[in-house]
Amino acid sequence: MRIAVDAFGSDDRPVPDVEGALQAAHAYGVEIVLVGDEQRVKAELGKHTTAGLKIEIEHAAETILMEDKPVEVVRGKKNSSIHVGVRMVKDKQVDGFVSAGNTGAFLAVATVLLRNIEGVDRPAFIQTITLGPRAITVLDIGATIDNKAENLVQFAVMGDIFARKSLKLAAPRIAVLSNGTEEGKGNEVVKATADALRNISALHFVGNIEAKSLFKDFADVVVADGFVGNVLLKCLEGTTRSLIDVIRAEIKAGPLTALGGFLAKPAFGRVRKMIDPSEVGGAPFLGINGVVVKAHGSTDANGIKNAVRQAKQMVDGNIVESIRAEIQKYQVPS
Amino acid sequence: MRIAVDAFGSDDRPVPDVEGALQAAHAYGVEIVLVGDEQRVKAELGKHTTAGLKIEIEHAAETILMEDKPVEVVRGKKNSSIHVGVRMVKDKQVDGFVSAGNTGAFLAVATVLLRNIEGVDRPAFIQTITLGPRAITVLDIGATIDNKAENLVQFAVMGDIFARKSLKLAAPRIAVLSNGTEEGKGNEVVKATADALRNISALHFVGNIEAKSLFKDFADVVVADGFVGNVLLKCLEGTTRSLIDVIRAEIKAGPLTALGGFLAKPAFGRVRKMIDPSEVGGAPFLGINGVVVKAHGSTDANGIKNAVRQAKQMVDGNIVESIRAEIQKYQVPS
Repeated sequence: MRIAVDAFGSDDRPVPDVEGALQAAHAYGVEIVLVGDEQRVKAELGKHTTAGLKIEIEHAAETILMEDKPVEVVRGKKNSSIHVGVRMVKDKQVDGFVSAGNTGAFLAVATVLLRNIEGVDRPAFIQTITLGPRAITVLDIGATIDNKAENLVQFAVMGDIFARKSLKLAAPRIAVLSNGTEEGKGNEVVKATADALRNISALHFVGNIEAKSLFKDFADVVVADGFVGNVLLKCLEGTTRSLIDVIRAEIKAGPLTALGGFLAKPAFGRVRKMIDPSEVGGAPFLGINGVVVKAHGSTDANGIKNAVRQAKQMVDGNIVESIRAEIQKYQVPS
Repeated sequence: MRIAVDAFGSDDRPVPDVEGALQAAHAYGVEIVLVGDEQRVKAELGKHTTAGLKIEIEHAAETILMEDKPVEVVRGKKNSSIHVGVRMVKDKQVDGFVSAGNTGAFLAVATVLLRNIEGVDRPAFIQTITLGPRAITVLDIGATIDNKAENLVQFAVMGDIFARKSLKLAAPRIAVLSNGTEEGKGNEVVKATADALRNISALHFVGNIEAKSLFKDFADVVVADGFVGNVLLKCLEGTTRSLIDVIRAEIKAGPLTALGGFLAKPAFGRVRKMIDPSEVGGAPFLGINGVVVKAHGSTDANGIKNAVRQAKQMVDGNIVESIRAEIQKYQVPS
């Protein structure tokens, strides 16, 4: 299997990008194509031992900046590492592409070049979030907003396929994010989505889920509009970080509690690892004709490595082909 | 000042309701009217010393259950403690009313009996959330959903008044919850809201806020649709609780970390108090002709006490009159 990795995606490019790609080559036995300025990638590669690994470089002359506007990137920077990587997916030169670059540009280029799978009106970013021993997979987390019920129904179908084929869950429980668990709770889109999902017997729809119950083992996949899913994801991220900051400050406030904190350090280390987004990897982009995974801009090498694992799992699970085959079967409400 | 307190609102009624009301009478010097079945309230009062306090009982023969449908309650249980309490506000027998009862019933009865302030199309629940040293005030957290931009603009005006007059902030910074900080980010309603708020010079509008930045001292008041605000609030609640559970479990996993946890206990105690919703009280209901505050169903006495404090602050700050006077001044987009 060949996976292309954007060598110039992350905030600290190309350091974590290249290192993570090499870690993935080691760990998963995949061939890696590093996409970016050839000389600079070579220089970065020179810092590592690559013996026994299959690593190639695909030259990409341009770099996308965080401030670049997605629309302009699509037409204006056709030699960017995102363009080159996505084009390799399109041309079947690689099985998948991972980038930690500009989200809007990534989304725009992937959508324009790979196009939506027939029957998918809007693609979605899917992300697995862990807190302690529990994980929950949410889509959409921000690819498209102001979605209609039929879009959310398609998200549910894609989420189900992803959870079965990529996460290897036998019968994923699907829920729709709402402001109450009772039937009939929700905004208009959520209510219509729930009504539609209740009638799709092939899905294991468990009803509405509230944001406070995400980690209570009630559902495996949560469907939301991209705006709401994005708010949810960022709330989780921010609350976790803020709470840990508060706990740290209070522990350091006195000598005895500081000693306690020192002794409890291994426990905090395990918690930090449990909530570390780089353990999950990135956000696969579902609904287009190709395997592409978006890693976090601030990712470390471990995050890139795990994003490659996610791309591999999508390829192994035939996610794209499965969506293509299954999405047509579901009647969507109008 | 006279504040009515629903003696039969909370899950453990009437225990925390009565105890919290008495604590508030002590702490804030307010007169309390306990609303509920006279004999049972008397029996509960008998467990406390009330010397020096001004405590009355207003009989309410019916009790609203969690499973009661709001619409049926409005017409069907006119002698419920919620009805009686709200009616006392309407008839100016009390200055405000606090209840921990059924949210939907509370909302419906308060809206029907007290009616919206002229110029307010939809009222909103406002809630202050604390995490560590920082607090953020969010509205709407679930009173109404599928709001339009003009509703969110009214929320902003009411939030500004509340923050100035009740929270005593000099120039509250107002933000709208969105999926990105850049101008132009957001769903259609959020974008239209931001455009409108930018043109209201009397408000200190600071733009979009992301859910991950709530506690970064970027804004004081955050405006959201009730659906999104509710998701945000529950996400905060659930994430905080889940993360603390995870930390506790990891600390208890080994003898040394457990010892560390024991030594650090005072720090955790302070954190628990910092994130305890009962320290804040309840959710004032803004935009109607009267002061009503909804306490959490699972509240303890402290939560009721603080909800009475909130009601008192709303009365002291002339919140209702201020909204009435100021809401008309702001032109709303159509």
